[in-house]
Amino acid sequence: MDLQRRITSLRGEFLLFALTPPRLSTAPEKAQEIADITFERLEPLDVDGLILYDIDDEADRNPEERPFPFLPTMDPANYLDRHLETWRTPVVVYRATAKYTEEELRGWIESQDTATRMAVFVGASSREKPVATTLRRAQQLRAEVGPDLLLGAVAIPERHTRKADEHLGLVAKQKAGCSYFVTQVVYDVNAAKNLASDYAYECNDRGLDPIPLVFTFSVCGSMKTLQFLRWLGVDVPRWIENDLRHADDTLDTSLEHAEATALELMSFCRRLGIPFGINVESVSIRRVEIEASVRLAERLRGKLAR
Amino acid sequence: MDLQRRITSLRGEFLLFALTPPRLSTAPEKAQEIADITFERLEPLDVDGLILYDIDDEADRNPEERPFPFLPTMDPANYLDRHLETWRTPVVVYRATAKYTEEELRGWIESQDTATRMAVFVGASSREKPVATTLRRAQQLRAEVGPDLLLGAVAIPERHTRKADEHLGLVAKQKAGCSYFVTQVVYDVNAAKNLASDYAYECNDRGLDPIPLVFTFSVCGSMKTLQFLRWLGVDVPRWIENDLRHADDTLDTSLEHAEATALELMSFCRRLGIPFGINVESVSIRRVEIEASVRLAERLRGKLAR
Repeated sequence: MDLQRRITSLRGEFLLFALTPPRLSTAPEKAQEIADITFERLEPLDVDGLILYDIDDEADRNPEERPFPFLPTMDPANYLDRHLETWRTPVVVYRATAKYTEEELRGWIESQDTATRMAVFVGASSREKPVATTLRRAQQLRAEVGPDLLLGAVAIPERHTRKADEHLGLVAKQKAGCSYFVTQVVYDVNAAKNLASDYAYECNDRGLDPIPLVFTFSVCGSMKTLQFLRWLGVDVPRWIENDLRHADDTLDTSLEHAEATALELMSFCRRLGIPFGINVESVSIRRVEIEASVRLAERLRGKLAR
Repeated sequence: MDLQRRITSLRGEFLLFALTPPRLSTAPEKAQEIADITFERLEPLDVDGLILYDIDDEADRNPEERPFPFLPTMDPANYLDRHLETWRTPVVVYRATAKYTEEELRGWIESQDTATRMAVFVGASSREKPVATTLRRAQQLRAEVGPDLLLGAVAIPERHTRKADEHLGLVAKQKAGCSYFVTQVVYDVNAAKNLASDYAYECNDRGLDPIPLVFTFSVCGSMKTLQFLRWLGVDVPRWIENDLRHADDTLDTSLEHAEATALELMSFCRRLGIPFGINVESVSIRRVEIEASVRLAERLRGKLAR
């Protein structure tokens, strides 16, 4: 069953792998080289789909110094068209809607082959940011000009921890036409369970079917990567930080943790009847961390009822 | 191996059952009847020890209305002497030190048979409370007049969630002569792991051996009991509350949750080399909830390496 069917039939149990496009300054030949390596790495994984992130400078969201410097990256839609066009599964392209005019977004939506392309729209990272198109408006545009393009939205368990209303946000996005959600990287399994549970019961109260929640996982190979995860807004529990800090092999230990967290969430969602997907990324660009993320995806693939 | 040896040799893996003494207004014959029923219920459990709580009116700690009215209870030391004197394992008697004068505490400590009696000293529940003897002073008294009486202290994972310094408090209590800790009821496994982990690594940094952490569990048979748990200061995660609220059988579901939480903490502590004990209580006085707590203790007993 293909990814779109797994989503629209509320079956879930699919595997995605997420990539960040190369830096904007990358020469075309180098970008193709990177894409080729990615092909080689991911082909054997047999994922149901790829995700391409749309990276925005989120410095305004977080006053702390970014552990890794921000360097603008290629537009994911361009990277896909120029270097990954032969990839054989659906690709989910993120769009940070604030960056694009309505015209640009409309043009992009209209030109997508909905059999092989999907989208996730992301709102502005802070209220201070100049906004070319709001998330709400982008969702309307898609409903008008590209209702067949499967649209997703982000789900942030950490926001639910702080404000306890993220489940209501999910229901609103679902009503605006979204058919799946993708979380940011999950380290706090309790926060993810709280959000999934509140969302499922809210759907139940309103007579809605919950749509697939895609949980994202990433390994962490160093304290610097952990610091970066925190900067990105990921709650890393103290006990996991301690385990990683004192591990003989931080990366291996993190792989074990991520696998355990994913399996716990999978069985939790199955028990509650919430359709779910798994998404794996590497927040770090170090080769060993990318390779460990591929191993994580490999392990989780075997646990999905695909 | 008896309870004291399991504690002082840092072996852990022991099982306790905690009781609240009957109401102060209970007639002696009725109190004996209650004690007899308790004997009957707990004898087959083969626990390593009993705990008797010293209930204090904690209304000053929490401005919210108490879900169950506060009624003064018998002094645990009196209840023990008058009605449970033939119980054959060690008994841990709680002492809310603020309630007793130094003289009373000294007399009590001196008169204890240290082969069969242990103590946990608890400080005042708020800063506003009149304090006859501070926790610190009570700990000094015991060091002076009853160093062989094994002393414990309370450990509050929820405090660690708020202030992230409870592990330092545990080390200070350990230095003041405590040889074990007893938590309040645990529903938030993540909070308990954070505290256990921070405590273990703090010990490691200071060249100390961690002493046994006794984790307390209680079932919850109704939303009223859940409300009471929260009033007592227990963090009950949203997803567990949702599960309980929508369960066909709240009590059974809660029993499953408590067992899973306990098993997770047990394997966590074994992996980190933290000695631990298990304590089961019923925060409710309803018979079905007490009996379910006994079943919980029974299940957990089989998982301990006693």
